[in-house]
Amino acid sequence: MQLFYAHKIEASKAFLDPEETRHCTKTLRKNINDIISFTDGCGGMYAGKIVDFNKKSCTLEILKTLETSDKRNFKLHLAIAPTKNINRLEWFLEKATEFGIDEVTFLLCQRSERKKIRLDRLEKVVLSAAKQSLKSIFPKVNDLTKFKDFIPQAKADFKGIAHCNTPDLPHLKNVLQQEVTEILILIGPEGDFSDAEVALTKEHGFEEIGLGTSRLRTETAGLAACHTVHLLHA
Amino acid sequence: MQLFYAHKIEASKAFLDPEETRHCTKTLRKNINDIISFTDGCGGMYAGKIVDFNKKSCTLEILKTLETSDKRNFKLHLAIAPTKNINRLEWFLEKATEFGIDEVTFLLCQRSERKKIRLDRLEKVVLSAAKQSLKSIFPKVNDLTKFKDFIPQAKADFKGIAHCNTPDLPHLKNVLQQEVTEILILIGPEGDFSDAEVALTKEHGFEEIGLGTSRLRTETAGLAACHTVHLLHA
Repeated sequence: MQLFYAHKIEASKAFLDPEETRHCTKTLRKNINDIISFTDGCGGMYAGKIVDFNKKSCTLEILKTLETSDKRNFKLHLAIAPTKNINRLEWFLEKATEFGIDEVTFLLCQRSERKKIRLDRLEKVVLSAAKQSLKSIFPKVNDLTKFKDFIPQAKADFKGIAHCNTPDLPHLKNVLQQEVTEILILIGPEGDFSDAEVALTKEHGFEEIGLGTSRLRTETAGLAACHTVHLLHA
Repeated sequence: MQLFYAHKIEASKAFLDPEETRHCTKTLRKNINDIISFTDGCGGMYAGKIVDFNKKSCTLEILKTLETSDKRNFKLHLAIAPTKNINRLEWFLEKATEFGIDEVTFLLCQRSERKKIRLDRLEKVVLSAAKQSLKSIFPKVNDLTKFKDFIPQAKADFKGIAHCNTPDLPHLKNVLQQEVTEILILIGPEGDFSDAEVALTKEHGFEEIGLGTSRLRTETAGLAACHTVHLLHA
């Protein structure tokens, strides 16, 4: 099954943006009256008939709603310091999208080596991974935010900070309750969070957590947290 | 901490191979009497003093045994069809090594697109990931093996085949008992295992398992299986 992304839905019509239109009508040579599957990225998945297209837009008539397999009974938000090597960050985004995640925020921490990201490029990684893995819910990707600005306004039922400064922190799987529905987890940069950063999170109700005995790279820790939350709810 | 790999240990002496010697004495400019940490890749980790080196070899006097954090109460063997894109396979190996895995076998399946691998290159990925994540146990990497040759001789207390041909297979986390110590899990190629392949495994005592509701790429499924086994034992 090939899944497209419709950026706009109005009554019984849906619309593909220029890039999706090109992919659909040029690369895959779909034509008027062909039926395709598409999602709005917010939980809706549909079958639709191509009723009109030009170079920049493709109009679909919605025929029916399709069943999706990625409905979750929790909301997962990961805030992660971008890795120095951008490929590692893109890899993390692809895999987290495959597993299923609702929101990703990039954190600018005290020990961050990377201080800039290209949000548009990262959003493309997410879109491509979401379509490939047939997701109907696309993660929201937030721009780089200063750690000290993010922490005081961060809201979730469970707020955890994963770090390695303290040995033998309780494992996320033993701390997180299955009933908790809004989950936020922080993952630090290559040099980990500073003690001052950990202290700030504790002032704002975050729990310190571990992710096992292995020394994990930033992007691996992010994925381990994401997969752990999924397993607890599976 | 910087970890080196000693390919030979004899009584109180350990030896680095040409590549590790170059890295240690040339790149990092270690010299006679410097003390370094090294592992034999089989669970032993040591501190040792450089007592002699030339271009091709470095001799260490073992000073003491170091504590390791990667002792496991289980043995995990993943047999996986190599992905068409070799980067995805290398990524899987790096991450599985980071989490901790004992053995990887590459499977040549009916629907495999990739029919060749460069084992020496993949072994280098494993070595580098193991050193980076301070592992004292290095995974054994086995060459490409025909599926029908591998299955009849495969031995483990728990043998599972993860596939998507049947909906709603029981999740690995609900099937695997924590007490089981030898675990073998099969992960198929991009087009999944064929029905005939699944049938063959069932004849040989494999259980069919699922890894959740998301449609996962081969390398992501491999990592999900690896991480699930770790979480169950954490």
